[in-house]
Amino acid sequence: MDEAGIQKRAARIKLLLMDCDGVLTDGRIWIFENGEDQKGFHTRDGLGIDLWHRAGLESGIISGRNSSVLERRAQSLGVKYLWQGRDDKRHAFADTLAQAQVNGDEVAFIGDDLTDLPLMVQSGLAIAVGDAVAEVKARAHYVTTANGGYGAVREAIELILKAQNRWDELVVPYLI
Amino acid sequence: MDEAGIQKRAARIKLLLMDCDGVLTDGRIWIFENGEDQKGFHTRDGLGIDLWHRAGLESGIISGRNSSVLERRAQSLGVKYLWQGRDDKRHAFADTLAQAQVNGDEVAFIGDDLTDLPLMVQSGLAIAVGDAVAEVKARAHYVTTANGGYGAVREAIELILKAQNRWDELVVPYLI
Amino acid sequence: MDEAGIQKRAARIKLLLMDCDGVLTDGRIWIFENGEDQKGFHTRDGLGIDLWHRAGLESGIISGRNSSVLERRAQSLGVKYLWQGRDDKRHAFADTLAQAQVNGDEVAFIGDDLTDLPLMVQSGLAIAVGDAVAEVKARAHYVTTANGGYGAVREAIELILKAQNRWDELVVPYLI
Amino acid sequence: MDEAGIQKRAARIKLLLMDCDGVLTDGRIWIFENGEDQKGFHTRDGLGIDLWHRAGLESGIISGRNSSVLERRAQSLGVKYLWQGRDDKRHAFADTLAQAQVNGDEVAFIGDDLTDLPLMVQSGLAIAVGDAVAEVKARAHYVTTANGGYGAVREAIELILKAQNRWDELVVPYLI
Repeated sequence: MDEAGIQKRAARIKLLLMDCDGVLTDGRIWIFENGEDQKGFHTRDGLGIDLWHRAGLESGIISGRNSSVLERRAQSLGVKYLWQGRDDKRHAFADTLAQAQVNGDEVAFIGDDLTDLPLMVQSGLAIAVGDAVAEVKARAHYVTTANGGYGAVREAIELILKAQNRWDELVVPYLI
Repeated sequence: MDEAGIQKRAARIKLLLMDCDGVLTDGRIWIFENGEDQKGFHTRDGLGIDLWHRAGLESGIISGRNSSVLERRAQSLGVKYLWQGRDDKRHAFADTLAQAQVNGDEVAFIGDDLTDLPLMVQSGLAIAVGDAVAEVKARAHYVTTANGGYGAVREAIELILKAQNRWDELVVPYLI
Repeated sequence: MDEAGIQKRAARIKLLLMDCDGVLTDGRIWIFENGEDQKGFHTRDGLGIDLWHRAGLESGIISGRNSSVLERRAQSLGVKYLWQGRDDKRHAFADTLAQAQVNGDEVAFIGDDLTDLPLMVQSGLAIAVGDAVAEVKARAHYVTTANGGYGAVREAIELILKAQNRWDELVVPYLI
Repeated sequence: MDEAGIQKRAARIKLLLMDCDGVLTDGRIWIFENGEDQKGFHTRDGLGIDLWHRAGLESGIISGRNSSVLERRAQSLGVKYLWQGRDDKRHAFADTLAQAQVNGDEVAFIGDDLTDLPLMVQSGLAIAVGDAVAEVKARAHYVTTANGGYGAVREAIELILKAQNRWDELVVPYLI
C-alpha cells in the first residue's frame, strides 16, 4: 500500500490488538518436561507498549494458545484486553471492539499467521510482522521490517504514534 | 531436482514423517542441571501440521533421542506415529509404513543429518531443511528455504498440499 | 562522530556504566509460569568486563527492571555498582558518579533504548548497541557493530582500552 | 594458512580438545533466579563427536566455568577428558596430553576467546569458531564457517576426518 494510505489509516487508530506467539515472541513454543511453558518477550516492545498507553490509547492481545506466562506479561505491561485459547479469534475481536467502543477502522491488528487473517481484514490498519506467512503479508496494509519478537510491535507503535503526531511529545521526557 | 519432478512426487504423498531435533527445532539440545530437557518448537510449523491433518493426511516423528517434551508436543498436535530413542531409524520407518498401509513413494520425509539418510532414500519425497548437512542436501529432492525450527516443516507441508491442490480449500476458512 | 573525536573521548574514561536488557542481553525478557526470570549473558562480554577490572577501572549496571539473575551475574563479574528497578535512571547515575568520584566526561555509558538517553547525554562517551532504537543511535558517539547480548559490551571495552593504550598489556598473558 | 598446510596438520591429529562456552554453545551464559545453569548444545555437533569416537579417536573439553550441565553432555557423548573451572587452562592441557600419550602436533584445539590462545599455540591444528575474537582468529590455522554452537565443532571434525581419509567409511552406514 502507498505511504499516504498507511498514514491515513494509522491516524485513525485508537486500539492496538495483536497476536502473541510469532508477534510478541519469535514464534517458538518452549516446552519443558513438566509441561511448563516459557516465552521470550522483547524489552523494546515493552517500552513501546508503555508509550502507547501513556498516549492514552488502549491495547489487547488475542492468542490461540493458553499460557499463564502471557497473563503475567500482559498484566505487567498494563494491556487491558487479553483473550487466550481462541482457535477462532473472531468473537474475542468483536467483544473487544464492543467493550472499547471503537469501530473496526479504529483498530490496528498485528498478526503473523492464517488465524489472524479474519481479524486483519476487519481492522483499519492490518500489520504483518516481517516473517509472517505469505497470505498474511499479502493482505496487510503494512509489513514491519522487524520480525516477530524482535521489535515488530515497537515498529508498529512508532508508525501509528508518528502518524498521529504524538511520538515527539512522548520522547521528549527522555531528551532532557 | 526439476520443479515438475518435485510436483509429481509431492502429489502422491499420504504420510509425512520427520525427524525432531534440527527439523522441528533448530537443533539445539537444551540441558538443565537437573538433567531436564527443553525444546523450542515453532508455532507456524504447528498450524501447518494442523492443516495437514485437516486435509485427512497422517504424520509421524522418528527421533534419535528420548524426550517427554517431544511426546507432549506430538500429542497436542495430533501426530499419530511417534518413535523415540532410535539410533537406527529403519525399523521405526518400516513399522510406520506397515501400520499406515502406505508405500515408500507415498511418504515424505524431512531430515537434517546422516541418521535421516536411510529413510530419505526410501521416501517418495525426501526433503532437507535449509541448514541440513551437505550429504543430506545432496540426496534430497527438495531443500527448504527455511532452517529447521524456523518454518521448514510448514514450508514442506505447503509444497505438498499445493501439489495436491488442497491448499486453497484449507486456507479459505481464514479468508472469510 | 569522527574517529579522532571518539579516541579522545575514550582516552578519558574511568567508569563504564551500562544498561542490562538489550545491552548485556539481546533484549528478550524470558518469563516462566511460576513468574521466574531467566537471562542470557554472553561469555565474551564476561571476559571483557574481567579485563576492564584488571585494568584498574570500575563498572556499573543501571537497569529499569528487577532481577535476582542480574544480581548473580553482576556479583560473579565483580561489577561494583548495581542499580535495579529504575524507571528514571538519573538518580542512580548521579549517585554512582558521586561514589566513584568521577565526572561525566570520565564515564562511558552503553544503552539501547529511550530510557538510557538521559544518561548518555551526560556521559563523555555515549555508546549505542548495534540494534539500539534510532533515537539512541542518533545521539551516540559510537555505535557498536555487535548487537546487544552478542558482544557489544566487549567491543566497547576494547575500543576504550585500546584508546588508553592498555589493551596490549592485558592480552599479553594469553600470548605466552 | 594455505589449504595444503591445513591438510597436512589435520592428517596428524589424534586428539580433539575444545572449549565449551562459545564453541560447543553460542557463548550465552543462561542464568536462572535459583542460580541454576542451562546450556544449548547442537545435535549436529553431537553426531560429529560420535563419528569422531567411532573413528577410534579421543576427545576432551577444557572449560573456564563450572557446570554440571556440561558434565552431563560430555558423559552422554563419551568425551573422555573433561576439565572445568580452569581460569588457566595450561595445566589441564598438559595433563590431558600426558594421559592421552600424544604430542602437541597430534592435538587439534577449537577455541573462541583469549583464554584459549595458550592452548591453541601448543596445538598442531588451532581452530577458531566463525565468531571468535580477532586475536584468536588471527592465530588460528583454520577458522570455521559456522559460529560456535551452530555446527563449528562438526565442521572441524569433518575437516580432520576427511584429511585422514576416514570420513567416507564413517558415512557409508547411512548410505545403504
